[in-house]
Amino acid sequence: MRIWFKTIDIITNTKTEIIDLTETVKKVVKESNIKNGIVNVFTKHTTTGLCINEHEEGLLKDIVNYLQEIVPEDREYYHHHFFYKDGRAAVNAWAHLRSILLGAFVTIPLSNGEIMLGSRQRIFFIELDGPLSRQLIIQVIGD
Amino acid sequence: MRIWFKTIDIITNTKTEIIDLTETVKKVVKESNIKNGIVNVFTKHTTTGLCINEHEEGLLKDIVNYLQEIVPEDREYYHHHFFYKDGRAAVNAWAHLRSILLGAFVTIPLSNGEIMLGSRQRIFFIELDGPLSRQLIIQVIGD
Amino acid sequence: MRIWFKTIDIITNTKTEIIDLTETVKKVVKESNIKNGIVNVFTKHTTTGLCINEHEEGLLKDIVNYLQEIVPEDREYYHHHFFYKDGRAAVNAWAHLRSILLGAFVTIPLSNGEIMLGSRQRIFFIELDGPLSRQLIIQVIGD
Repeated sequence: MRIWFKTIDIITNTKTEIIDLTETVKKVVKESNIKNGIVNVFTKHTTTGLCINEHEEGLLKDIVNYLQEIVPEDREYYHHHFFYKDGRAAVNAWAHLRSILLGAFVTIPLSNGEIMLGSRQRIFFIELDGPLSRQLIIQVIGD
Repeated sequence: MRIWFKTIDIITNTKTEIIDLTETVKKVVKESNIKNGIVNVFTKHTTTGLCINEHEEGLLKDIVNYLQEIVPEDREYYHHHFFYKDGRAAVNAWAHLRSILLGAFVTIPLSNGEIMLGSRQRIFFIELDGPLSRQLIIQVIGD
Repeated sequence: MRIWFKTIDIITNTKTEIIDLTETVKKVVKESNIKNGIVNVFTKHTTTGLCINEHEEGLLKDIVNYLQEIVPEDREYYHHHFFYKDGRAAVNAWAHLRSILLGAFVTIPLSNGEIMLGSRQRIFFIELDGPLSRQLIIQVIGD
């Protein structure tokens, strides 16, 4: 049994942005040379999320719209009265709440060198408070 | 350390349906003969979900009702303007969004041959766009 | 490859309460003496949740408020007509639904003896129907 991980850097371009990570995950799995086991994709941020779903451009717009609707921005949040040590106000409570709904990681079984996604499943990284520089961990454990 | 998995086929009968997988997961764990480690249950679909909660019939109805309320069907979605190669329209954006809220996998610790669920915890597969034929992976990693 | 776990007892003090588990998880990882692998934190209850986000007091209030808003208490739930064997009514469907939105576990990569959290990430246990006595599993798998 071996353990492998790689840190992935992502630069996001817009406030809410969905990035398809599937090919990146496949590449890291291949590099790991681990054939059977488990893959954990983990974001290191509190205003981003990860999920598995279908890559259809209309649906991606629906996901962005839904996140914006289910956690509205134009209201009072306690977090917005907080100032970081550098004097910046934290005006992104809605991004944190959206991040909690999505979750910070996905875990996928690996068999014969392939992640066991269904035919329509893709792995998405979701930027919720961009544009920013972000980091992910892709970890592979197995034989 | 060993790795074991089994593919489980499920035929769902209604549009939104909650299926208790707990006994199936226990059976696969027993077959694996792995006593200590981790169990990952993973759905291969983008309009289904997995979760862990209590099996009480009234509560299961509340879960179905809540999913239907929190992601309404009677509105415009971009995904509904998409046509698959076979000419079918994609009229289930709401099922994808519910799937994202639930998540595609659950990961449970295993000790002495038993999944470490609490006394009221059960593992549920949730069909969100049935009836359909579905596939799950139950993976066990450990000793 | 080794497998280690520890059961953690938590007494909660209020109905909805967010408890920062990060130092507890770090302590258990250190005790395990496992340096590289994966950590799974798992709650054994159906009216609690786990998530990873930022520990800022205003934001924690926003999380509590958001959970209370997104799953309202003052409505009819089928679960509330259910009586346990001990005659207590189940008047907490909203706590179960909030629990499902949060999820029952978090899985974090471990490298060189450190959980690979980002600089603002903390691991939270969320009580949704307290005050109660609760149990968590912190499991570490690796070398």
